[in-house]
Amino acid sequence: MEAVPQTMTAITIAEPGGPEVLRPVTAPVPAAGVGEVLIRVAAAGVNRPDVLQRMGRYPVPPGGSPYPGLEVAGTVVAVGPGVTEAMVGQQVCALLAGGGYAEYAVAPAGQCLPVPGGYDLVEAACLPETLFTVWTNLFERAYAVEGDTVLVHGGTSGIGTMAISLCRLFDVTIIVTCGSDDKCAAAQNWGAHHAINYRTQDYVAEVARITGGKGCEAVLDMVGGDYLPRNLQCLAPDGRHVSIAMLGGAKAQIIIPEIMSKRLTITGSTLRPRSVAFKSVVADELARSVWPFVESGQLRPAMDSRFPLTRAADAHARMEEGGHVGKIVLTVE
Amino acid sequence: MEAVPQTMTAITIAEPGGPEVLRPVTAPVPAAGVGEVLIRVAAAGVNRPDVLQRMGRYPVPPGGSPYPGLEVAGTVVAVGPGVTEAMVGQQVCALLAGGGYAEYAVAPAGQCLPVPGGYDLVEAACLPETLFTVWTNLFERAYAVEGDTVLVHGGTSGIGTMAISLCRLFDVTIIVTCGSDDKCAAAQNWGAHHAINYRTQDYVAEVARITGGKGCEAVLDMVGGDYLPRNLQCLAPDGRHVSIAMLGGAKAQIIIPEIMSKRLTITGSTLRPRSVAFKSVVADELARSVWPFVESGQLRPAMDSRFPLTRAADAHARMEEGGHVGKIVLTVE
Repeated sequence: MEAVPQTMTAITIAEPGGPEVLRPVTAPVPAAGVGEVLIRVAAAGVNRPDVLQRMGRYPVPPGGSPYPGLEVAGTVVAVGPGVTEAMVGQQVCALLAGGGYAEYAVAPAGQCLPVPGGYDLVEAACLPETLFTVWTNLFERAYAVEGDTVLVHGGTSGIGTMAISLCRLFDVTIIVTCGSDDKCAAAQNWGAHHAINYRTQDYVAEVARITGGKGCEAVLDMVGGDYLPRNLQCLAPDGRHVSIAMLGGAKAQIIIPEIMSKRLTITGSTLRPRSVAFKSVVADELARSVWPFVESGQLRPAMDSRFPLTRAADAHARMEEGGHVGKIVLTVE
Repeated sequence: MEAVPQTMTAITIAEPGGPEVLRPVTAPVPAAGVGEVLIRVAAAGVNRPDVLQRMGRYPVPPGGSPYPGLEVAGTVVAVGPGVTEAMVGQQVCALLAGGGYAEYAVAPAGQCLPVPGGYDLVEAACLPETLFTVWTNLFERAYAVEGDTVLVHGGTSGIGTMAISLCRLFDVTIIVTCGSDDKCAAAQNWGAHHAINYRTQDYVAEVARITGGKGCEAVLDMVGGDYLPRNLQCLAPDGRHVSIAMLGGAKAQIIIPEIMSKRLTITGSTLRPRSVAFKSVVADELARSVWPFVESGQLRPAMDSRFPLTRAADAHARMEEGGHVGKIVLTVE
């Protein structure tokens, strides 16, 4: 068993603010508790909720790590009570409730998935958050199935590119929106069947045109606000609308007779506050349904850029600048 | 086979307006088409959509009868092609897409359910519309199950009283709202576990109190407007909200983070425009799941008042006056 140091570098949020409040500090290496493993982090994915947390708009769940970071990949170096010693030395990626921006991170064993031999740990670090999110929301909550057409906003985001990948693997037709023609081209290059530039086109009219007036079966939305009623107009009868964020506004107006006559479903969820038990069940589902595609190399994350852990501020600036296509990741040298 | 006359009395809507526009006319007896039966009507239930149709606010589906009336009970006197002659002479109640306010009405055979011997035909006429509506919305769309607590507005309405009856039969706890203490007492007398006077009490606070702060699992709503966001406040995590009307307003505001954090589902449906195939499937489900309680006499409609068919205007006036408890029904002498 490899030696674990007493201290590590972690990224702390000095105070709510811009990217510059992300600062490297020396902190104690955490200990794996009951049912947990300690991972020597090779890489940590950067996600939009990390930015909201940095701004003070996404409170850390009770008992959570003070450091941001919802996903990592690395090597298990220690296990807590109740976890088999056989995990030590395994390469895993893991969904975390926080604490990923660090050289060592603790994860519930049930939230770890094995990184296949030959799969880049830096890429593996970019799978859990978007995979758990898209799977539970688009495929479970909105039950997108083979033959459906779905609309996903932010086609070049981490969520968007993961949605494209999964839709391709499960024979779902995917329409995405993006903020530029270049991003539309990038999304289509990644596999989107259709990409709509929301700055120059009316996406409601475009979805109607693409679907021959029928509408789509599901919408995965992270915009909210005045997008939500427009999204509902995009839905076919019995369509499902799932909210996973509200970057464009928390309030939305709905037209009840539209919901009744098309029998629409409006729902949503948050992943981070869910229980370890729930996340472990999702991990089991992913191991069964999606992991074969990871093992065969058919499912890889779209990668935008890599930054050393200590330059987390630059990674956040990159995300907020909005020019990225795919995942931004922090690496531990 | 009993002789069927050429003409009958039916109630027509002379023009959109108040109850007085409902006028008896002499009209041809309709013929049973493919898959249909002709029913000699003993009684026809009066429903809120009939009032909206009379006002010109609920368009008749294409091909529908010009006469109002969504449910009848009576005797099958003729069958169309594809329907077994064995149905002739049977006493049935039926869900109609219209045409119930008449001495004879045509119904798809699949939308008929047998009236058990000894069961009053006038009461049987009051079952289909509310039974199909509450079953498909509260028990299917909102999947209320044993042990759940549900909130239903309009506790003394036809829908409300049917919801109370079904919740009692399927071990669901039901909270209703009503507009007076007398109606609250009537709803509780009919079986509601809790009744809230919405004029004197804050129903959101009352539901919280009754459920120990947990909230209810489902809401069946026909009010809409500013009730909808208040209904959502009444829901427990993973709660379901189903709209079946919007008597208080078609637009509603939702708070997206509330939907996400509680993982709420907002949906709704309309029954009348659905296909015969769909309604026939529901009838089969009702035959299996609910009809045993009709045959045993455990499920009877709450009855408010009876009017002769030719006095349909008085029946509508009674419904709009709002003092009724349970079903208003038209009888053919």
